[in-house]
Amino acid sequence: MVQRITVLGAGSWGTAFAKVLADAGRDVTMWARRAEVAGEIRDKHTNSGYLPDITLPGSLTATPDPAEALAGAEAVVLAVPSQSLRRNLSGWRELLPRGAILVSLAKGVELGTLKRMSEVIAEITAVSGDEIVVVSGDEIVVVSGPNLAREIAQGQPAAAVLACSDHDRAVAIQQASFNSYFRPYTNTDVVGCEVGGAAKNVIALSCGMAVGMGLGANTTATLITRGLAEMARLGTKLGADPLTFAGLAGVGDLVATCSSPLSRNRTFGERLGRGETLEQAQRATGGQVAEGVMSCTSIRELARKHGVDMPITDAMHRVCHEGADPRRVGAELLGRRQKHEWS
Amino acid sequence: MVQRITVLGAGSWGTAFAKVLADAGRDVTMWARRAEVAGEIRDKHTNSGYLPDITLPGSLTATPDPAEALAGAEAVVLAVPSQSLRRNLSGWRELLPRGAILVSLAKGVELGTLKRMSEVIAEITAVSGDEIVVVSGDEIVVVSGPNLAREIAQGQPAAAVLACSDHDRAVAIQQASFNSYFRPYTNTDVVGCEVGGAAKNVIALSCGMAVGMGLGANTTATLITRGLAEMARLGTKLGADPLTFAGLAGVGDLVATCSSPLSRNRTFGERLGRGETLEQAQRATGGQVAEGVMSCTSIRELARKHGVDMPITDAMHRVCHEGADPRRVGAELLGRRQKHEWS
Repeated sequence: MVQRITVLGAGSWGTAFAKVLADAGRDVTMWARRAEVAGEIRDKHTNSGYLPDITLPGSLTATPDPAEALAGAEAVVLAVPSQSLRRNLSGWRELLPRGAILVSLAKGVELGTLKRMSEVIAEITAVSGDEIVVVSGDEIVVVSGPNLAREIAQGQPAAAVLACSDHDRAVAIQQASFNSYFRPYTNTDVVGCEVGGAAKNVIALSCGMAVGMGLGANTTATLITRGLAEMARLGTKLGADPLTFAGLAGVGDLVATCSSPLSRNRTFGERLGRGETLEQAQRATGGQVAEGVMSCTSIRELARKHGVDMPITDAMHRVCHEGADPRRVGAELLGRRQKHEWS
Repeated sequence: MVQRITVLGAGSWGTAFAKVLADAGRDVTMWARRAEVAGEIRDKHTNSGYLPDITLPGSLTATPDPAEALAGAEAVVLAVPSQSLRRNLSGWRELLPRGAILVSLAKGVELGTLKRMSEVIAEITAVSGDEIVVVSGDEIVVVSGPNLAREIAQGQPAAAVLACSDHDRAVAIQQASFNSYFRPYTNTDVVGCEVGGAAKNVIALSCGMAVGMGLGANTTATLITRGLAEMARLGTKLGADPLTFAGLAGVGDLVATCSSPLSRNRTFGERLGRGETLEQAQRATGGQVAEGVMSCTSIRELARKHGVDMPITDAMHRVCHEGADPRRVGAELLGRRQKHEWS
């Protein structure tokens, strides 16, 4: 049994997943970039900036020192934003304990390189050296599914997917994380889970935009359906199993993210739909940009590189980065010509 | 071009679809069972009992006399509840104009016979006689998709599916209904569209139940994902194209029905989840029982007959008709053992 686990990153999902592991009986140490956040988690058992009103398990501890956090870890959970994973992991590389299972919570496609998160992790850790762990992409466990952090932190029942092409590693993390409210299922389709996890943020942005424009459930359900189709087109082109998109890491994650007011991407899209500019929306959310705002660019490039048609992702790129009017883009998206559903 | 169309039934979806047709430039006559409803539609251009605050097109007329409604119709839209379709249609059989295209808005599986709506229609109209239209199931156009009636009546953009094994008939109705806000796509998979349309009401009931128990988007997204899987299992067993469930008549219709507070099935489920009995929930909704309450019984029987596993439908039957406690059933549904996602 994997017992000693380190979670690198103390945002809402990292903290909620650390709580899942601690509630499953594991010894968990979190690393937080800011010393005051680490101190709050360690001393007060709260992370009020990300998960207000949640009490964390007493056994959960935290430190701002990555070396201290990583010492003796049998599994290392990477819970930093996708666009900063490379920079962060490069700094931690020499601290990773040999043989530790790497677990990725990051959802996105890296700008510029167009790599999925497990590819970034494999690339960084593949630089060989005396004391440096070398992992292949096959050895990374990717976590996905309908997993809004706040609901999981509240102990609501949730199903998740743990994807790893090495089934034994997925099972090890399954056994380490299974508890009374968290039900992880294993899967071997890392590509499908990662593409679904990244692409859904862009679709959630589009659903939020529609809601901000005053449209209802028919429109969001249509965007979810078309969004599922476009993420499945990209995923299968990259080698994913189409079945993954029909499951928890596909439609499940997509529906949870698109339908909850807790989703940052959806909320950000609502602001755009109400007529705010990207800068205004960013200011209103404390300077943060939703993951989908960056992912729409990298996913669009990845789709173009592989000749895959992704009209919603294209449209969101035009709104976020080319100054297109959401109303005009929405009308274009919804006003396609009469035809057979699949033509 | 099909120009003269009759809509039989003046509930919310029948009225909204009649408005779609009138807004597309068709001559539409509605039949309403109650003379006062027909009078209100004809004289005031409203149907306040079903679509409050909606103004209907001036060209839309209505009558309580089925013979008057059906005279000269080139297409006949059946918009009555699924469990009363047989009785209603038997009364109208001799009034159906020869050659009229029959269009079904009814979503359900008939109790007792376990027939889909197009099968019921074909059976009733197949009784031959001098002046009686004989249609085969292949000649019926089934309407499905993410189509909450109120949003469509408000003129919000919506995509729909028109399924008919005779592509020409689907195209005829597509051309007759296409307007500035209604985008119909054709499909030849009648079985898939009908199974999806019936089964989604049961899943919406389960999502409502979860919401009524205080659970959030992770749980409803999981129920939607598992619900999609179980409806696809039943549909493909009955000959449907699996692709249908990934489209507007599958995931699209399912997500719209499960996520909107406008959905009767979801609202009814919320009452059950808050601890009301079936009778209390029924009284609170003006004596109406949600479609899913009846469909869970007929769909469960259909699934058993064909050896298909439908755990959510089973669970809803136990809650609705065997007095099972929603909390216990919910815990059972969400607490399945550790395994691979697809095993």
